[in-house]
Parts: sequence; structure tokens; C-alpha cells
Amino acid sequence: MAMEMHPFDQALDLQALSDGVWQARTHPAYANMVGPFGGITAAQALQAVLLHPQRLGEPISLTVNFCAAVADGAFEVHARPARTNRSTQHWVIELRQADATVMTATAVTALRRETWGVDEEPMPLCPPPEDCLPPAVHAPLPFTKAFEYRPVTGHWPCVWDGSGDTSLSQIWVRDQPARPLDFASLACISDIFFPRLFIRRATLVPVGTVSMTVYFHAGSAQLQRTGDGYLLGQARAQAFRNGFFDQSSQLWDRHGVLLVTTHQIVYYKQ
Amino acid sequence: MAMEMHPFDQALDLQALSDGVWQARTHPAYANMVGPFGGITAAQALQAVLLHPQRLGEPISLTVNFCAAVADGAFEVHARPARTNRSTQHWVIELRQADATVMTATAVTALRRETWGVDEEPMPLCPPPEDCLPPAVHAPLPFTKAFEYRPVTGHWPCVWDGSGDTSLSQIWVRDQPARPLDFASLACISDIFFPRLFIRRATLVPVGTVSMTVYFHAGSAQLQRTGDGYLLGQARAQAFRNGFFDQSSQLWDRHGVLLVTTHQIVYYKQ
Repeated sequence: MAMEMHPFDQALDLQALSDGVWQARTHPAYANMVGPFGGITAAQALQAVLLHPQRLGEPISLTVNFCAAVADGAFEVHARPARTNRSTQHWVIELRQADATVMTATAVTALRRETWGVDEEPMPLCPPPEDCLPPAVHAPLPFTKAFEYRPVTGHWPCVWDGSGDTSLSQIWVRDQPARPLDFASLACISDIFFPRLFIRRATLVPVGTVSMTVYFHAGSAQLQRTGDGYLLGQARAQAFRNGFFDQSSQLWDRHGVLLVTTHQIVYYKQ
Repeated sequence: MAMEMHPFDQALDLQALSDGVWQARTHPAYANMVGPFGGITAAQALQAVLLHPQRLGEPISLTVNFCAAVADGAFEVHARPARTNRSTQHWVIELRQADATVMTATAVTALRRETWGVDEEPMPLCPPPEDCLPPAVHAPLPFTKAFEYRPVTGHWPCVWDGSGDTSLSQIWVRDQPARPLDFASLACISDIFFPRLFIRRATLVPVGTVSMTVYFHAGSAQLQRTGDGYLLGQARAQAFRNGFFDQSSQLWDRHGVLLVTTHQIVYYKQ
């Protein structure tokens, strides 16, 4: 593997094993507290679709279900086109490690066409990334070094005193080192928002994303225009109850184009 | 089939074919313009999980991908527990008709526990359902007769003049005839919001949901408390672009308890 390859490209460098089956590996640059950061595993799942010779069009939606912590090392990504229509294609994906399922996933790819369109969710008014300082406190999670964070509000708490009253976060973010955006990195960055429970409650409890869905509003031409620039991310929860909370997020490019809307449901203890 | 059985229960009356495989049928009470209303198919997919003898816990999340229009008549629902953990279980579901896949889906079920919790998304201030009139104009879709609608704002347009400026809808809704809420009907009702494009643009174009995700915040005890009462639904789009738009929705019971947050991505033409 060439030294100059970006860590993200190293992690996405899947090896074909057989028809629709690839070998992937966890990457130390994307390690989380236990196992890999979910965003990188989501990106690896999507990458099997992107590499598949039968793929039609570009990603429209991706749902990944985190079944178990992935152990450091190799695992298999199985991707199967379950249905191919004239302009849309439906994918079933499964990640397997040591003969067990560690992720189930589905994706839809499609041809994008010129249509009427409008963005209804406006980018919130925030200072530009150059005016936002790097965070005063860094989350003690290895993968966070793979991203440049310029928080506007609601970043990793400085004091864990149970004092929060909103789960809202707004943050400028991009790959570190900078890297031109593509669908896989957009899937990865969709998961960079810290668990909303930490923000809302300033209390550190065990958490883990159970399921994440990403809707890609941007096509490849838009991603090229975004390049390696900062994205503005916004995340907020709607309900915390009985061990699970949701979070809904958006990613805009700095010119206010909505690239992704994404949602997840997260397990929490206590 | 007994005459007094509710149409929803008729539609959900799956017949076991073999381990993890059921036969379901489309139901005329839930017909859409072409094929069945997506909500009923989502409920039938979930029903296979609910009926499965190996099921652990209650639904937490459900993602259904609409691969093709279901033809009137019978189809198979395949449900497989891909991973069973101590308190969560991951399901892979596929609906097949005439040897082709018509829906792919995944679900997570889990044991709910008593924890700290808070609802962050408040129920919008709306007049009670008794003060809201039935809609002046009924959508010409057979399945809408299976629901009682009491719109607050943003219902089926009276005039199709391209005049909309927001995609927001707020509506009181319940099964018609009334029926106690359960997880399957909650999945079904999650899809009752008309395509946001119709609301935003007051323009009738071909549309079809591609993928829908439902997060269940309510457990069975909460559903019992809700009974057959009205739910307040709210739906809004975030972006319409290049043939696809998203919509994000919430369902509260009339006491303001958030039961479901749900999201979908919808194909549109023009």
C-alpha cells in the first residue's frame, strides 16, 4: 500500500474475493472506543456497491444496521443487487466476520435526472469555518483525529455535570487530511455527530448506534463542486426513551447546498 | 375469514408456508393508484418479524425499500434473524412475488428497559381533533378511506395551480374504523403522509416512495395507553432535487407522547 494513500482510501481499498464478495479490514485511523467508528464501516459497506460491476447509477439511500462490534482485522462484505429496474437498483449488503453477521444493510442506487427542485431546509446562519476555533476539548476517541472539527455549538462537553438542555450541534467538518468528497466519505461523515445523549445531558453513558440511514441529495457533479471544502453539519435528537434515542442530521456544503439528510437510532444505558 | 375482522387485521393475517416464510395478500381496502399503499406492505413485512417464533423484544427500527409495484394477489414474506444479541436482534426481510423481489427490508427488535428519558421534539400546538373538520377534498386513492383524517394544515390541495410554498402538513389521523394501535399499524400509519411534492408545489406528478425508515419510540405499554385514539402527524421535506425528495415525519398521541419518528426518500418525475 503506497505511503501517500489517504487513510480513508486505505480503508476503502477492498479486495475482491468472489462475485459480490470483498474483503475489508478495520483501519487504526478510524478506531473507536470499542471496534471501528461506525461511519467507516458504513462507508466500507457502500464501497462494495460502488465497486460492484453490475451497479446502476449513484447512491440515493443507504441503511446500515450495526449488529455487533467489528473486531480489529479482516471481514467480508457481501453485496447483492436484489432488484434492478430501468433507473433504480436495490441492494442487500451483509458484513460477516468469524462466521457471524456484524452488519446488515440495504442501499438504493439510481440514475439522477434534471428536474424541478428546491432545498426546503435552509443552512443555519453560522460564522464561516475560518472564524470557528478548533474544539477546546478533544473527544478521547482515536477516529476523531481523522476529521477536522470547527464546532459552532454543541460539541463534546468540557464538563460532565448533567447540565445540558438541548441536543443541538452545529459544526464545520471535513476529512483530515483534507480529501475530495465522494459518496463513501459522505456516508462516513454522516456518522460523525457525537451521540446526542452526551450533548443533551452532559453525561457519559454507554451508547452504540443501532441503525443509520443516509439520504444522498447530492450527485457526483455536486460532490466535485464541493471538493475538499468544509461541510456544515447539524444534528438533533427528537426523543430519548427506554434505552434508545434518535438523531436527525444534515450536511451542507459551505455554499448552502444540502448534500445529505441522515438519521439514526442509538442504544443507551441508564 | 370472519366478517367482523378489521380490514387491517385481514391484511395482516399472514399464512405460514415454512420456517421464516409467510404468504401475504394485497387487500382492496389498502389499494393505491398502482398496487397497494406502501404503508400496508411495510406493516406486512414487519408482521413476519412479529410472528416469528425466534423474535426477541419489540420493534425499534424498520427500513423498507420499495423495489417494484406489488401486483394484486399473493406474495411471500421471508424474515430471517441475522443476528441475535443479548437484548437486540437484527432482521433481514424480503418480499417476493412471481420469483422477483418486490421489497427488501431490515428491522431491529430489542428489549426495552426503564431509563432516563426526555422528548425533545414537542408536539406542535394544534386544535384538538374534535375541532378539526374532515378534509374538504378527498384524495382519489382507495386506501385513504381506511383512515380518518382531520387535517390541521397542508392536506391534499383543493386547487392544483403550482402555488405551494411549504411542504409542512399537520394532521390528526387514525384507522377507520378505529382500531387499537399496535406496532404493525404504527408502521402503516407512518406512511400516510401524502408525497411532500404535492403539498409544496400543488402539482400532481408521478411519485413513488423508494425507501422508508421508522423508529419506534413507543413500547407496547405506551401503545395500549394510546388505544384507538387520534394521532397527530407532522411531515415536512428537506430537499427536492434530481428526481428524489425526502420527508421527515413524527407521530404523537393526543397527550403529546412522541410515538414514532419516520423518514422516507421518494422518487418524482419532472
